[in-house]
Amino acid sequence: MNLLALAGGVGGAKLADGLQRVVGENLTVIVNTGDDFQLHDLYIAPDLDTVMYTLAGIANRANGWGIEGDTYNNLDMLSQYGGEDWFRLGDRDLATHLLRTQMLRGGYTLTQATQHLARALNVRANILPMCNEAVATIVNTNAGELAFQEYFVHRRWQPVVKSYRFHDIEKARVTPEIQNAVQNADAIIFCPSNPFVSIEPILSVKGMRELIQKTRVPKIAVSPIVGGEALKGPAAKMFQELGMEASAFQVAKLLRGVVDRFVLDRIDEAQARSIKDLGMRVWVTDTVMRDEVGRERLAREIVEWVNR
Amino acid sequence: MNLLALAGGVGGAKLADGLQRVVGENLTVIVNTGDDFQLHDLYIAPDLDTVMYTLAGIANRANGWGIEGDTYNNLDMLSQYGGEDWFRLGDRDLATHLLRTQMLRGGYTLTQATQHLARALNVRANILPMCNEAVATIVNTNAGELAFQEYFVHRRWQPVVKSYRFHDIEKARVTPEIQNAVQNADAIIFCPSNPFVSIEPILSVKGMRELIQKTRVPKIAVSPIVGGEALKGPAAKMFQELGMEASAFQVAKLLRGVVDRFVLDRIDEAQARSIKDLGMRVWVTDTVMRDEVGRERLAREIVEWVNR
Repeated sequence: MNLLALAGGVGGAKLADGLQRVVGENLTVIVNTGDDFQLHDLYIAPDLDTVMYTLAGIANRANGWGIEGDTYNNLDMLSQYGGEDWFRLGDRDLATHLLRTQMLRGGYTLTQATQHLARALNVRANILPMCNEAVATIVNTNAGELAFQEYFVHRRWQPVVKSYRFHDIEKARVTPEIQNAVQNADAIIFCPSNPFVSIEPILSVKGMRELIQKTRVPKIAVSPIVGGEALKGPAAKMFQELGMEASAFQVAKLLRGVVDRFVLDRIDEAQARSIKDLGMRVWVTDTVMRDEVGRERLAREIVEWVNR
Repeated sequence: MNLLALAGGVGGAKLADGLQRVVGENLTVIVNTGDDFQLHDLYIAPDLDTVMYTLAGIANRANGWGIEGDTYNNLDMLSQYGGEDWFRLGDRDLATHLLRTQMLRGGYTLTQATQHLARALNVRANILPMCNEAVATIVNTNAGELAFQEYFVHRRWQPVVKSYRFHDIEKARVTPEIQNAVQNADAIIFCPSNPFVSIEPILSVKGMRELIQKTRVPKIAVSPIVGGEALKGPAAKMFQELGMEASAFQVAKLLRGVVDRFVLDRIDEAQARSIKDLGMRVWVTDTVMRDEVGRERLAREIVEWVNR
């Protein structure tokens, strides 16, 4: 069975890892690149890296991002020089940015660079950036307009979000690799990633939403909001700041018209009825992936639900 | 007293450090940049870095180049990716290349970038690249034409040198900062660096040789060849391959017309007469700098000789 997953950062990467454990190289993951930015003239793709490191089995176990056992001597020296040091570039991690940037300057597409790096790390799944064009998620906050990493890392998502937009999204196109992956997919899984700044950028690539909508396979979302909270990151806070209740039901509402099945945590079982009323089938289970076993268990339940 | 020194890599950096210990911020060092090259799209200036790290007191004590206590986790990851790993970029060292490259792309001259970095490391002396233009030392060997670092590091200077040239040297110009430093110098010291690929590139910058020649101050060379051998690197081997005897006398012959004083090691005292016959005054002493004390002692002897 060919699975296609849409993912952002840490939460999405965990479910993608679970799916890879179940279907191996039959998994393709489309990853948000709206978070990508330049630092020290290097092209940095935080979500692509988190997904790649997680699928390669080298992600930092405590943070979810970065490489396990990485050191920060380069960052320390950058600090000593008075350089920008708010984004924690690890010494090993930096090799990814150096090589990717070099490949991009040399004419590789972001898709080609991603595949080259992932292959070198023996990742079995196929990791695809949502597009090859540079798109930048911009968050409009009470502290002004902020590039996403500026908001997320530098300001630790403390500013209040008023709105957000995807700069240059109109220039982004569905790649042939994604077109192919969608057409060959037997199911599409929306990983538990931030619906506003991880899933929405992917769906906003010209043609992406329609391509997914017209494919007649199960489309299953896993809620990133559990018990009214996000396990990691600003998703719940953003719901509130944007005037919505932070709930699995709200996630389902945002994905209505694209998704037809919804995986809900037991703690939110009371919302199953409202989600079904949106026209979705609902599966209630434990969605919190505490470790690799939890990732694989959730992934296997989803696959079995699709097969049933 | 204002001192001006010309230097290449490790040997030159050691004497420059000795001179800095004697005259502090009254030292200016002009550094060879013919060795500079690009790796992973980063601009790397090995001689500038060696001089800067040495004058900042952070150079690796065993090698002379790189930063003491540096780690190689980035290099290890680059290797894992199958990237180029023959040039040993340290994790801390990499911060220098990242920031310098970023400054150059942002419109800084190499002189400005060098001064910014050296200042951040509290270097007292003024370090100046020989020019702002990119010049590349190319070595023609029995293994073909090789860029300098390819010959020096990758091939460990094993190929036989037939000739060498400085690519794009005709585009290089004496900078205003160097013009100023030469005019204000009370003495010019040619550090014990490779005469072919460290000193000659500097003198080959358009106008440099004449500028130094017309300045009426003592110009003192310290031989990089001691007892027929180079303390480090390929200098002695290059003399032989280029059909010359590896000797202090040959070094003096190469610098005739530019230098008027020569510092000779005791072991080579028998050559004093021939060097005097070239029209130079000769000072015989122990020129091997075994530690910081040795660097300062040699520097102090040179300064006293100038003052006498």
